[in-house]
Amino acid sequence: MTVEMISVGTEILLGNIVNTNAAYLAEKCALLGLSCYYQSVVGDNEERLEDAIRLGLSRSDILILSGGLGPTKDDLTKEVTAKVFGRELYEDAHTKERIQQYFRQVHSSQVTPNNWKQALVPEGAKVVDNHNGTAPGLILEENGKIAILLPGPPNEIKPMFEQDIAPYLNKLQPEGIYSKMAKICSIGESKAETMISDLMDAQTNPTIAPYAKTGEVHLRVTAKADSEEKAQELMAPMMEELFQRFGDKIYTTEEDVTLEEAIVRMLEADGMTVTTAESCTGGLLAGRITNVPGASNVYKEGYITYSNDAKERLLHVKRETLMQHGAVSPQTAYEMAEGVAFAAGADASLSITGIAGPGGGTEEKPVGLVYIGCYVKGHVRVEEFYFTGNRDKNREYAVARALTLLREELLERR
Amino acid sequence: MTVEMISVGTEILLGNIVNTNAAYLAEKCALLGLSCYYQSVVGDNEERLEDAIRLGLSRSDILILSGGLGPTKDDLTKEVTAKVFGRELYEDAHTKERIQQYFRQVHSSQVTPNNWKQALVPEGAKVVDNHNGTAPGLILEENGKIAILLPGPPNEIKPMFEQDIAPYLNKLQPEGIYSKMAKICSIGESKAETMISDLMDAQTNPTIAPYAKTGEVHLRVTAKADSEEKAQELMAPMMEELFQRFGDKIYTTEEDVTLEEAIVRMLEADGMTVTTAESCTGGLLAGRITNVPGASNVYKEGYITYSNDAKERLLHVKRETLMQHGAVSPQTAYEMAEGVAFAAGADASLSITGIAGPGGGTEEKPVGLVYIGCYVKGHVRVEEFYFTGNRDKNREYAVARALTLLREELLERR
Repeated sequence: MTVEMISVGTEILLGNIVNTNAAYLAEKCALLGLSCYYQSVVGDNEERLEDAIRLGLSRSDILILSGGLGPTKDDLTKEVTAKVFGRELYEDAHTKERIQQYFRQVHSSQVTPNNWKQALVPEGAKVVDNHNGTAPGLILEENGKIAILLPGPPNEIKPMFEQDIAPYLNKLQPEGIYSKMAKICSIGESKAETMISDLMDAQTNPTIAPYAKTGEVHLRVTAKADSEEKAQELMAPMMEELFQRFGDKIYTTEEDVTLEEAIVRMLEADGMTVTTAESCTGGLLAGRITNVPGASNVYKEGYITYSNDAKERLLHVKRETLMQHGAVSPQTAYEMAEGVAFAAGADASLSITGIAGPGGGTEEKPVGLVYIGCYVKGHVRVEEFYFTGNRDKNREYAVARALTLLREELLERR
Repeated sequence: MTVEMISVGTEILLGNIVNTNAAYLAEKCALLGLSCYYQSVVGDNEERLEDAIRLGLSRSDILILSGGLGPTKDDLTKEVTAKVFGRELYEDAHTKERIQQYFRQVHSSQVTPNNWKQALVPEGAKVVDNHNGTAPGLILEENGKIAILLPGPPNEIKPMFEQDIAPYLNKLQPEGIYSKMAKICSIGESKAETMISDLMDAQTNPTIAPYAKTGEVHLRVTAKADSEEKAQELMAPMMEELFQRFGDKIYTTEEDVTLEEAIVRMLEADGMTVTTAESCTGGLLAGRITNVPGASNVYKEGYITYSNDAKERLLHVKRETLMQHGAVSPQTAYEMAEGVAFAAGADASLSITGIAGPGGGTEEKPVGLVYIGCYVKGHVRVEEFYFTGNRDKNREYAVARALTLLREELLERR
């Protein structure tokens, strides 16, 4: 079956917002085995929206429209889709009640009169409750064609898609699509691809696809089967094969677990604490670790030491080291890692010192040169990196590499 | 004139990448006064691409196609567009020479044979040099319709658009479009809009448009004129009016200056240093300040103090304060700000303590409660905030508010 996304919103046409909904929906639909040949964007304009819907229905089995379900007169998606399907709108009592409850809970206020427009639904449409907003999702079916209307805000569309739309789409097909993830660090994208090229060449059911992320590779294994149980059976040997090949470089098989979360959970399990000493990344590493809910169990404090004085005073890096080797040197990274673990009384630590750019580079120490130190249980390891991006990218990659290094050392010294 | 974007690439249809090019092109075209009613995405498929181009030419004056100009057989944008325009391809000697040079400089290697495909251009097309890659940009004109073909990678398309395509599009119109920016902090979006509603109602030339950003509002003033000088003359009274109304809440009129950069430049000008003590934001504030190239002139060190122990030991927050009022309290924020300025020997400081969520909230101190302290020259100010987002959003807003508070205090105590 084919699916087509129509994003409705003048703010997308003006470039005020990036169309992340289309990418989200496209990825999810691909996972469900639906083929997507077109995406389009139209503004809040009756005539052009009607044309887009008619064109979409003429060439795709399923249309997913997002946006334009708001309470204002500008919001036309529901009205125009109902017109194309030849349906009248009526007030849905269930939705009216839900909107009322939503306002009571979230806004502690009365429903504004124009919100009642959102309780109007096309005759014969399936109504999908919105647990994070007022506009319901709507599904219209006719002559083998389907239109799915979803709200625009990402925090509304995503849970609605996961909970109700994905299962609905999965049921439309003779076989459902199920997938598992193996997220990998400590290994580059091309090497990882080479290591699974035979699996990719031989793939039928399940299939396997690599996705490159900053400092990580995610492998998605996807199976078609008429039940989730059978799909799991199909995927199990492939997952086992991946564990054979990548071993503990697979840090999680959970879709929504990040590398930093995997590390925080490892530290928790081992009853260990970690701290950080950052120069060129200036707090971004700490920011990523502390983005994990509950990070405070393992992360108590951290230091940003830009100046040599701060490195000496807070981390007890030796002045001779700084004078002889410079702030960006393996020796300094070593002493920072050791010093910060001591200063914070932590079981493990990471240190980062480097030249993020655009200025500050020399022939000997170019922009992109970064040293990362990792202390675990009395042992320090230092790694050298040459990143080739701009300031932002170099900082982002340094943080990713640091997390990977910590994970490796935690595994090594367990 | 109307413009339509066609993004070519299967990776967009699969949701592997977000279509940031479309947002970039849409914003730039809106700035140039072009009306955009449609955007679409098609894959690397000859038939569907041809349909999309014909449809686009039937309803818009200018088509901007991005992607599909690569060296592989899958890359079809140029071939299909040439077919629609009835043009043959020939090898462009200038482009061939440029590709050769590019390879020599960037790859220190030989051109791979399939790259010569990128030297083929449609008869009569304008060739736009690519200074950041091999595929040239191409412009085809016929019967008042225009197709502009641009490479897909953002680091190639953006400089090409700025340098060559924007001036080309601006010349097509009887009057050019020029704009200026006023970036505002310390004032909410709705208040800012109210304060300019009379200007917006009365707008003709120049026009004014507000854009809401996290903790900021950006006002863009746009004028149409037949020269940049005349446009500047038209915009000057409006910019003056905005300064009358918003005064020093306008932190910059430069397109690419961020709030943190404006603050770093203020501190540099005043010969002051700043430091940070973060609890719930865990390094993100420091990370944002140190994202400014040259931040090391004013930012020497910073502290992440998650635990009470760290707050006491590193920032000298009193144990009684923590016991009596808690870690998330105005008193603690006050002592953190004062203590970190002292610890770092800095002239100014920011402190953040709060409950980012999802856990940790109580009835009295709910998720989203954040206290921000700011120390400048012996004076401490503490502000209370209730943010209503998820963990990420609460942290992002706290950082934005902290920067705004610092700027206010720096202005106040100058």
